[in-house]
Amino acid sequence: MTPPPGADSTRERIVAAATAEFARHGIAGARIERIAKAARTSKERLYAYFRGKEELYATVAAAELTAVAEATRLDPTDLPGYAGRLHDYFSAHPDRLRLMSWGRLELSPDPAPVDGSAATDGPAADGSAADDPVRATVRHKTEQLRLAQRAGHLDPSWDPLDVLVLLDQLATAWAGQSEFLPADAERRAAFLAERRAVVVAAVQRLFPAATGRPATTGRPAATG
Amino acid sequence: MTPPPGADSTRERIVAAATAEFARHGIAGARIERIAKAARTSKERLYAYFRGKEELYATVAAAELTAVAEATRLDPTDLPGYAGRLHDYFSAHPDRLRLMSWGRLELSPDPAPVDGSAATDGPAADGSAADDPVRATVRHKTEQLRLAQRAGHLDPSWDPLDVLVLLDQLATAWAGQSEFLPADAERRAAFLAERRAVVVAAVQRLFPAATGRPATTGRPAATG
Repeated sequence: MTPPPGADSTRERIVAAATAEFARHGIAGARIERIAKAARTSKERLYAYFRGKEELYATVAAAELTAVAEATRLDPTDLPGYAGRLHDYFSAHPDRLRLMSWGRLELSPDPAPVDGSAATDGPAADGSAADDPVRATVRHKTEQLRLAQRAGHLDPSWDPLDVLVLLDQLATAWAGQSEFLPADAERRAAFLAERRAVVVAAVQRLFPAATGRPATTGRPAATG
Repeated sequence: MTPPPGADSTRERIVAAATAEFARHGIAGARIERIAKAARTSKERLYAYFRGKEELYATVAAAELTAVAEATRLDPTDLPGYAGRLHDYFSAHPDRLRLMSWGRLELSPDPAPVDGSAATDGPAADGSAADDPVRATVRHKTEQLRLAQRAGHLDPSWDPLDVLVLLDQLATAWAGQSEFLPADAERRAAFLAERRAVVVAAVQRLFPAATGRPATTGRPAATG
């Protein structure tokens, strides 16, 4: 189907409206009518661009993955700095964290299927779903970390996927805790600035920034 | 309204069915009809116990908070051990993590309201919502950590709320990553056992278990 004239701006308005709608209501709770109205278009024109809610969500989520990657830039020689940028990004855009969290909940209804039907058969880096943008992003980042390990910038005893997941959990710890944040904007900003310092310090302790010479800090023995 | 005879077991079946329904579908997606059917009762009897979905979710979430606290037992002198228990609990019950995650997303639709209408006016420990079970649990745990700090078991330069939030993020890091877990049950168990060792080692590095003498490890300088 050929998009109608003025396609780009209409499509952009739809994506922007869908981003807000999905962040607030999730996928199941989102309403195509509300998205079309907020984008100043019709349901019919929306369906000329996107077959349905799932395709629209996938587009929005992929755009967000690109946006956060560009805004925060993984530097494998300075993981504390990267964690600080992630904290800043999601503190400024808590709706973006919600947007991704809905997808994780709504698109994985069976967290531990015994028959293997709804989950993949290996960790992210196995290349089994090369077209999935989340997996592609994870694979790219773990590769960056692996190179940093080879260059001596990061303790090679960590599995790169552990580094990525644990760092992400620390960096997004506070942006997702809306119930603990002061409502007053000024107090909230001061509170989040303090939390940023703590998050960066925690990541520095786990994954110290490279000092210019090969990393010498051993990971604590993992004898769980 | 007086509950009918046989109340306890009917109520228990409703709570069990609601736990599964909310974990899978969230609050908005849950259907009272399905819960009643799974509990082998009627919508009418269900409404004799619970006024509606929100009250039912609040009951289920409060029960889960109690269950996880009893199963994992915060020991402020051994935070790595506690993190390992949390990892084990949510790895064995990923549905319980989903249950709580839905509530966080669905009950906080406005993550950063500028008018303060939908958020509280301070961090959790301020006692502004003493009847909220999440806040009550957090307050109890931060108090335990504060006592451990006074007794010299935990570096006193950490804010107890930071300890709690960061530890929770690390301990639940993998149970929530269903898309990265092997589908095969045996491989998944082995994968999660490796992740457990890494999580415990990370928490040991951030919040070392008490050695019997007062803690001497300084927190890295937080100069965000």
